[in-house]
Amino acid sequence: MKIAIVLFEHCTALDAVGPYEVLSRWPGATLHMVGEQRGVVRTDTERLGLHVDTTYAEIPDPDIIMVPGGYGQRCHRGGSALQAWLQKADRESTWTTSACTGSLILASAGLLTGRRATTHWLAYDDLAALGAIPCRDRVVFDGKYVTAAGVSAGIDMALTLAAKALGDDMAQIMQLGLEYDPQPPFAAGGPRTAPQFAVDAVTAVRDHIV
Amino acid sequence: MKIAIVLFEHCTALDAVGPYEVLSRWPGATLHMVGEQRGVVRTDTERLGLHVDTTYAEIPDPDIIMVPGGYGQRCHRGGSALQAWLQKADRESTWTTSACTGSLILASAGLLTGRRATTHWLAYDDLAALGAIPCRDRVVFDGKYVTAAGVSAGIDMALTLAAKALGDDMAQIMQLGLEYDPQPPFAAGGPRTAPQFAVDAVTAVRDHIV
Repeated sequence: MKIAIVLFEHCTALDAVGPYEVLSRWPGATLHMVGEQRGVVRTDTERLGLHVDTTYAEIPDPDIIMVPGGYGQRCHRGGSALQAWLQKADRESTWTTSACTGSLILASAGLLTGRRATTHWLAYDDLAALGAIPCRDRVVFDGKYVTAAGVSAGIDMALTLAAKALGDDMAQIMQLGLEYDPQPPFAAGGPRTAPQFAVDAVTAVRDHIV
Repeated sequence: MKIAIVLFEHCTALDAVGPYEVLSRWPGATLHMVGEQRGVVRTDTERLGLHVDTTYAEIPDPDIIMVPGGYGQRCHRGGSALQAWLQKADRESTWTTSACTGSLILASAGLLTGRRATTHWLAYDDLAALGAIPCRDRVVFDGKYVTAAGVSAGIDMALTLAAKALGDDMAQIMQLGLEYDPQPPFAAGGPRTAPQFAVDAVTAVRDHIV
């Protein structure tokens, strides 16, 4: 059982590390942080380096694939090494997943054509333009494809996937280990609940997110 | 305005990366991932490497200090380089904070003596033994000391701190950018709500967490 979490330059750290914290505790699985070449990639803020341990060539056949987003996703459209790897690896994967705008990479690889999927709330139109059917749910299953909404939603995605694949008991043990009893300070986590000034402020920096 | 997030061998990734994702977007601040020496440290699962960019000696005067937990915290008690740095850096910091068992490091440095603080739910007794007054709240303020419960609670801590230091408007913008509208699949995030089998299972691997 092999789990591959993709890293690339200017990915969003929490998109990858949220799911990692759940998936790295998957019983009987080995988790790999995967990228084009071994070494450190910088996240979207440039303020954190994450280490790629395994190259795409070294893991052709993961059981679970997880792709993060972040504005660096724009460099991974048609013809990139990541796209080529995804198209092959997806053929045998049990689950192919993403957090945030990672779904734009999956869609661009043709994996979400005609499928229900989600992404960061600022990127619904981009997801539709790549052939998927955008849904506003936090976690969206369509067959073996599991996509999460923006950034922090990757934690919910990974726990929901664990429940489906491993059973509710194991997912609850994972959730308790991470003390995932979230208490956000505001009802501002989505565009339908956040105040308009917040929606406007985040929309204004769309290019730094999508 | 300087923010220092500490990294060390066998820290828990989400303890650091949850707060990082908020604090790295603090207006006007520069964030540094800080450690004993520059280079990659491995997290508690050994499956993820995080890069230390800045040594303790290079940042003697951060305005905000954030210390993660993970079982590697056991190596940072009296006399360690981290303890020595914390004791000095804390004198001038505006906020000294932690996630998960990072509070055991702060307490061991003498910074939480007689103060209200929190930690991972498995470590309340350890925190008390180090002189702090354990609280079961998810985020605990005592003067400039801000501590979070286990792992994922660091996100709530950082957003709550942002609200206090920067105002509610900015914290809501940050929360919306991260689409932090959590929807955990179960009411299993704490020992008071989780089923007993989950409490027993996590308690059985206490040494891997605390």
